[in-house]
Amino acid sequence: MYKKKLKMIHTTHRLRVRYGETDPMKYVYYGNYAEYLEVARVELFRTLGMSYNEIEKRGIWLPVSEYKIKYLKPALYDEMLEIHTFIKKKPGVRIIFDYEIFNESKQKITEATVTLYFLDSLKNKITTCPEYLMQLIENNWVVPENL
Amino acid sequence: MYKKKLKMIHTTHRLRVRYGETDPMKYVYYGNYAEYLEVARVELFRTLGMSYNEIEKRGIWLPVSEYKIKYLKPALYDEMLEIHTFIKKKPGVRIIFDYEIFNESKQKITEATVTLYFLDSLKNKITTCPEYLMQLIENNWVVPENL
Amino acid sequence: MYKKKLKMIHTTHRLRVRYGETDPMKYVYYGNYAEYLEVARVELFRTLGMSYNEIEKRGIWLPVSEYKIKYLKPALYDEMLEIHTFIKKKPGVRIIFDYEIFNESKQKITEATVTLYFLDSLKNKITTCPEYLMQLIENNWVVPENL
Amino acid sequence: MYKKKLKMIHTTHRLRVRYGETDPMKYVYYGNYAEYLEVARVELFRTLGMSYNEIEKRGIWLPVSEYKIKYLKPALYDEMLEIHTFIKKKPGVRIIFDYEIFNESKQKITEATVTLYFLDSLKNKITTCPEYLMQLIENNWVVPENL
Repeated sequence: MYKKKLKMIHTTHRLRVRYGETDPMKYVYYGNYAEYLEVARVELFRTLGMSYNEIEKRGIWLPVSEYKIKYLKPALYDEMLEIHTFIKKKPGVRIIFDYEIFNESKQKITEATVTLYFLDSLKNKITTCPEYLMQLIENNWVVPENL
Repeated sequence: MYKKKLKMIHTTHRLRVRYGETDPMKYVYYGNYAEYLEVARVELFRTLGMSYNEIEKRGIWLPVSEYKIKYLKPALYDEMLEIHTFIKKKPGVRIIFDYEIFNESKQKITEATVTLYFLDSLKNKITTCPEYLMQLIENNWVVPENL
Repeated sequence: MYKKKLKMIHTTHRLRVRYGETDPMKYVYYGNYAEYLEVARVELFRTLGMSYNEIEKRGIWLPVSEYKIKYLKPALYDEMLEIHTFIKKKPGVRIIFDYEIFNESKQKITEATVTLYFLDSLKNKITTCPEYLMQLIENNWVVPENL
Repeated sequence: MYKKKLKMIHTTHRLRVRYGETDPMKYVYYGNYAEYLEVARVELFRTLGMSYNEIEKRGIWLPVSEYKIKYLKPALYDEMLEIHTFIKKKPGVRIIFDYEIFNESKQKITEATVTLYFLDSLKNKITTCPEYLMQLIENNWVVPENL
């Protein structure tokens, strides 16, 4: 039997929970995960070969249109989290990031999906994924080894 | 023809966008809406007759298990937003808040759903909605006038 | 005996501590006061007759050059704080805001000073307080009644 | 001539500016530096040999009593900042951290001082630096090489 291996982009990023990000329950405040996910996708872009900052300088903004997150277990102060970021579908006018966050005990604590769209910041109009970015995505579109 | 009017809880809260909450696009950063929604549901509890602070002091925590948000239009610096908060289903072990946020031009800019669960903070165990809170919800369970 | 009454600008603003702003000590995280002070001075400008947003739209930015704060007592979750904001010296290239924050028990919990400078955002050059703003400050430059 | 070399503790920590931490001026929002400084002193404790989390678990809290910061130049989105943290005076009931932050061009952009005090969290009473922490500070009290 043959099972097709799916191509995608997959990167990981590790970050440590800051004191100011936790709440009186000693959990990471539920609103602060959005910033963790932003950091993780910015590092994905850097891994592909172009920083998000450079994309913005070229006139493309990436506002978020939709965000879903499931909190399976709390993240605690000072924990080193490992964030797995995936692009599983080639972008058009939208680009979708899937996430899984693991704690130090290798437990999955969070699943999330963030949908962004490409905006021409000068014209203030929705556009498609720019060619230079699509090329970088194509170059890195592989069957992930470690999944 | 008869159309049944749905009973629910519905409150509104207004808040102004802070400078530190906006990003280089001059939009409210996508992660900061979670705090707006928290403020709105805390004010809903206060309207029902018991502050969230009081609920915590009685040993009940309300961690978030799921959060979904659609960003229809950006919220801008200094705008006064109007947040509509709804409980449409009586709580069990979970309590679900639905939200709609409107800008100053009365445009709907955001739709969101936040699911929380009741946690006995001493036993660290999931529990059902405490009786004193359920009573307040029952007392306020009406067909909303203004929808 | 004669004691000269000092003229100044003095406004007050009230805001409620949000859950996400508190930390595992159940205190407002020390970094979050900066945003409270920003909100208070933005409301001072609005009281004078021009929003900070309008000042920015006229090409003036007000970056912070210095910030000092003493934490006398902690601010707690859900407390309604009263922030007193003062301009005691007429602005030149700098504008200095003094602050006192009181909790619900009328205890002073914080003293702070924030120094900002006027920046011509197009030329990216330091400038002096614009005439339209100085006029509003002059108009409101009085001996405060309630001190 | 002899110039006495001062002993102290000196550590460095690098962190990257996040998108959500910047404001419409594309600068790091002035309130967000407090969290950077917290991260830097937490890493100093870890370098000494005990995490801040462990100190809290042993019943000692370290609330901030005073905080001063000068913003010499703005920090920009995506910059990798280098934070130098110093303890120049052995702690008593207070512990004072001095900071200098440098940008990628090795320019000093910020100077800051944060004063914290030792609080026995069970008794809710001010106390002196615990012996186990003082020992770690003594062990690392040296003339810094790289200054």
